[in-house]
Amino acid sequence: MGEKRKLRLGTFLGGTGGNIASWRHPDAVADAAINLNYYKDLVEKAERAKLDLVFIGDGLYISEKSHPNFLNRFEPLTLLAALAGETSHIGLVATLSTTYSEPFNVARQFASIDHISNGRAGWNVVTSPLEKSALNFSKTEHPKHDLRYRIAEEFVQVTKGLWDSWEDDAFIRDKEKGIFFDPEKMHRLNHKGEFFSVEGPLNISRSKQGHPVIFQAGSSEAGKTLAAKVADAVFTNHESIAAAKEFYEDVKNRAVTFGRSRDQILIFPGVNIIVGETEAEAERKYEEIANLVDIDVALNYLGRYFNDIDFKQYPLDEPFPDLGDFGAEGWKSTTEKLKKLAKEENLTLRQVAQRVTTPKGGSTFIGTPVQIANTLQEWFEEGAADGFMICPSVLPNGLDDFIHYVLPILQERELFRTEYEHDTLRGNLGLPKPVNRYSKTKAKAST
Amino acid sequence: MGEKRKLRLGTFLGGTGGNIASWRHPDAVADAAINLNYYKDLVEKAERAKLDLVFIGDGLYISEKSHPNFLNRFEPLTLLAALAGETSHIGLVATLSTTYSEPFNVARQFASIDHISNGRAGWNVVTSPLEKSALNFSKTEHPKHDLRYRIAEEFVQVTKGLWDSWEDDAFIRDKEKGIFFDPEKMHRLNHKGEFFSVEGPLNISRSKQGHPVIFQAGSSEAGKTLAAKVADAVFTNHESIAAAKEFYEDVKNRAVTFGRSRDQILIFPGVNIIVGETEAEAERKYEEIANLVDIDVALNYLGRYFNDIDFKQYPLDEPFPDLGDFGAEGWKSTTEKLKKLAKEENLTLRQVAQRVTTPKGGSTFIGTPVQIANTLQEWFEEGAADGFMICPSVLPNGLDDFIHYVLPILQERELFRTEYEHDTLRGNLGLPKPVNRYSKTKAKAST
Ligand SMILES: Cc1cc2nc3c(=O)[nH]c(=O)nc-3n(C[C@H](O)[C@H](O)[C@H](O)COP(=O)(O)O)c2cc1C
Ligand SMILES: Cc1cc2nc3c(=O)[nH]c(=O)nc-3n(C[C@H](O)[C@H](O)[C@H](O)COP(=O)(O)O)c2cc1C
Repeated sequence: MGEKRKLRLGTFLGGTGGNIASWRHPDAVADAAINLNYYKDLVEKAERAKLDLVFIGDGLYISEKSHPNFLNRFEPLTLLAALAGETSHIGLVATLSTTYSEPFNVARQFASIDHISNGRAGWNVVTSPLEKSALNFSKTEHPKHDLRYRIAEEFVQVTKGLWDSWEDDAFIRDKEKGIFFDPEKMHRLNHKGEFFSVEGPLNISRSKQGHPVIFQAGSSEAGKTLAAKVADAVFTNHESIAAAKEFYEDVKNRAVTFGRSRDQILIFPGVNIIVGETEAEAERKYEEIANLVDIDVALNYLGRYFNDIDFKQYPLDEPFPDLGDFGAEGWKSTTEKLKKLAKEENLTLRQVAQRVTTPKGGSTFIGTPVQIANTLQEWFEEGAADGFMICPSVLPNGLDDFIHYVLPILQERELFRTEYEHDTLRGNLGLPKPVNRYSKTKAKAST
Repeated sequence: MGEKRKLRLGTFLGGTGGNIASWRHPDAVADAAINLNYYKDLVEKAERAKLDLVFIGDGLYISEKSHPNFLNRFEPLTLLAALAGETSHIGLVATLSTTYSEPFNVARQFASIDHISNGRAGWNVVTSPLEKSALNFSKTEHPKHDLRYRIAEEFVQVTKGLWDSWEDDAFIRDKEKGIFFDPEKMHRLNHKGEFFSVEGPLNISRSKQGHPVIFQAGSSEAGKTLAAKVADAVFTNHESIAAAKEFYEDVKNRAVTFGRSRDQILIFPGVNIIVGETEAEAERKYEEIANLVDIDVALNYLGRYFNDIDFKQYPLDEPFPDLGDFGAEGWKSTTEKLKKLAKEENLTLRQVAQRVTTPKGGSTFIGTPVQIANTLQEWFEEGAADGFMICPSVLPNGLDDFIHYVLPILQERELFRTEYEHDTLRGNLGLPKPVNRYSKTKAKAST
């Protein structure tokens, strides 16, 4: 028997936190989403706590109704590059959509961050749930769900191919002989697919960890298949341990179908932790957050998941309206979950809006440090998670509290590290460095 | 009379330097183009010297024949973001092509760097001279010269429009009242043009300097017109003070035609400075560099400007071959200059190849500190330049020597600052902060 299996932990850093009104919290830094010193503090804090990674979300369309943290925020890749210099061990993961960028540009930028951070970059592959994103990119129409995922898969394959353009020992740099590189170790991808034709080579080499870590964050059928094919890790969201276990099994089994091992893909449910020294204190913290949200704001926020429908047209305290298939595009898995929840718990529109803006139950864990640690351990040990993405509803408090109250218990139980084992993200996540596809072919050919 | 007019100085940082064999120089750091500590040292050095800016070039296609510094290098925007944290006053300018990116993404990334650096970002707008770039971007054909410039103009206009999405006082962040922003101060661009349709708003506000500084680096007719319309600064290259003066006058006059003032567009000829304490020492340094280049490498390099033609098919020591119009696309102004030079000075193919790889004369100034300072002063005072882009053939030596030998003379003559006047790039360049287009309209309407 080797080392005890360890939890992986990331934290989602989105300005003042996930709650729509988090910026109003007395401890929130209201301009957090565009405040570099604020991000530096958070990421340094996360690194001192030995977390595996920090995670940055993204979006490509805003309106008056958007989450305040989305209106005016750093672009994720430039933010990661700026944070890399402040840190030495923690992973740096940013979200980027495959629907509105070019693989060559994306491959370069992530590879560059991977070099800047010395092997700590990660890419959260999303397909853009917001239909109106098309309007910012000279497109008449946002590609449909299935099409987006077909594009995404080819996009990631191209990107991975470009990342292997140079074998790890391609650069010789012999000043005397005048040999800078070995042309045999430079490779053109020559990809010609359904959506992309990319010759290569990429004008940047692989970093210490080989490829940036690939996260994926969609939970529909197409999303799970994409994850199982190409992702190293999945960021997901579940309302119960049962649902999380089902998802976990499903994705791992799919990965096996595609010839991968179960260990090669890590499942990170997002969890929002509200912890107090006592249950009452935790509850008080929850109430403080929930009370920051106006009902109008909550309805607007809910509308975002349903193509910006105006929910004010429906009575607040009657059962959640029957919207049929409406809202199926974009946030498919989220809207389906909400409809199901409303039906099962017989919730009113107001309650659904509150649940969306200030969730309770499900993946929001409210309680004492030991209660929270027990829940995390249960999810981890019962096959619902390989780790967690801590998604605080209010920052910096949510992260501070987690680190202060919960982490020491997890460490005491030997569920989480007390020192980094490696200085690359793959190393710390226990993922192998991908062998360059061309070196591999050669190695095979010579045996 | 106010302050004496001051020179603006930038330095081009491209790995081991502009010379194709610079990496072989005994003092070169052979992996410079992908070495972050190396870049940090250079940019800190440039900042201690009070230079206005550092400048990063770019390219979107490589082959075995590419400049070694182009094969494996940082992506410019992520590099700038990483360098921003190391510095506080120096401008950070990166090259990005308008031919293979989306304005929404580009506007965001530059705005983000502009925030990260607190108002010190600049964008060098290029249209991609390398025809084969198309092959990396799923395009069957690289757009022709004129078309590229039409796209570029609209691209920059869209970007500038997006940068004005939020008026400077749009974010109120009143926790008590729950007012995060003033919707009247959020603006949709609603651009519908020939090449782009972009609704907006951008999801990031303006920085301290309003907009990143726009550089432009093409010298054809279309290039000059684009610069005159949209650029704050031009990076250009000339073989003589006469040519530089003509260009300077031409661009300034064009700017006036477009309703701008002559001061609103700064001309930066690129100059390669090889300085020694004596003329003999300078000459020795030149020879040392020239001798690093093999003739085969020189011919390959020359071929890059002419659609990768194989120059080995022509006799080395006979007059430069007549290629007709060949090579007109892409590096138009460069190839025309070379053909003219070959004819005027009756150069052989070998001599042209050497001139291209290790130039002498023209914009390469070789001499003693006083000779160099005199030449720079002459260009500056006779209307050939507002400043210079120092483009060392070998780094770090070329920059070190310039700072050590030449800069003190320029400072003594009160041609260059001894302290930064501002902490934004626009401030130091003497360029005004652009007023937000919507605030301007409102201000006009209310008078
Ligand atoms: C936990 C989680 C986090 C996500 N984060 C982002 C994000 O930051 N940006 C984004 O555009 N989409 C994000 N998404 C959206 C997904 O990428 C996907 O587009 C959406 O969930 C619809 O796909 P699906 O039907 O496969 O779930 C996220 C989804 C989940 C479940
Ligand atoms: C001084 C100078 C620097 C340039 N730097 C770059 C560069 O870094 N990347 C690039 O793609 N093109 C660069 N260019 C190319 C121009 O942007 C332009 O595409 C090329 O010169 C052809 O346009 P023209 O015919 O208008 O000169 C540069 C051109 C000049 C004159």
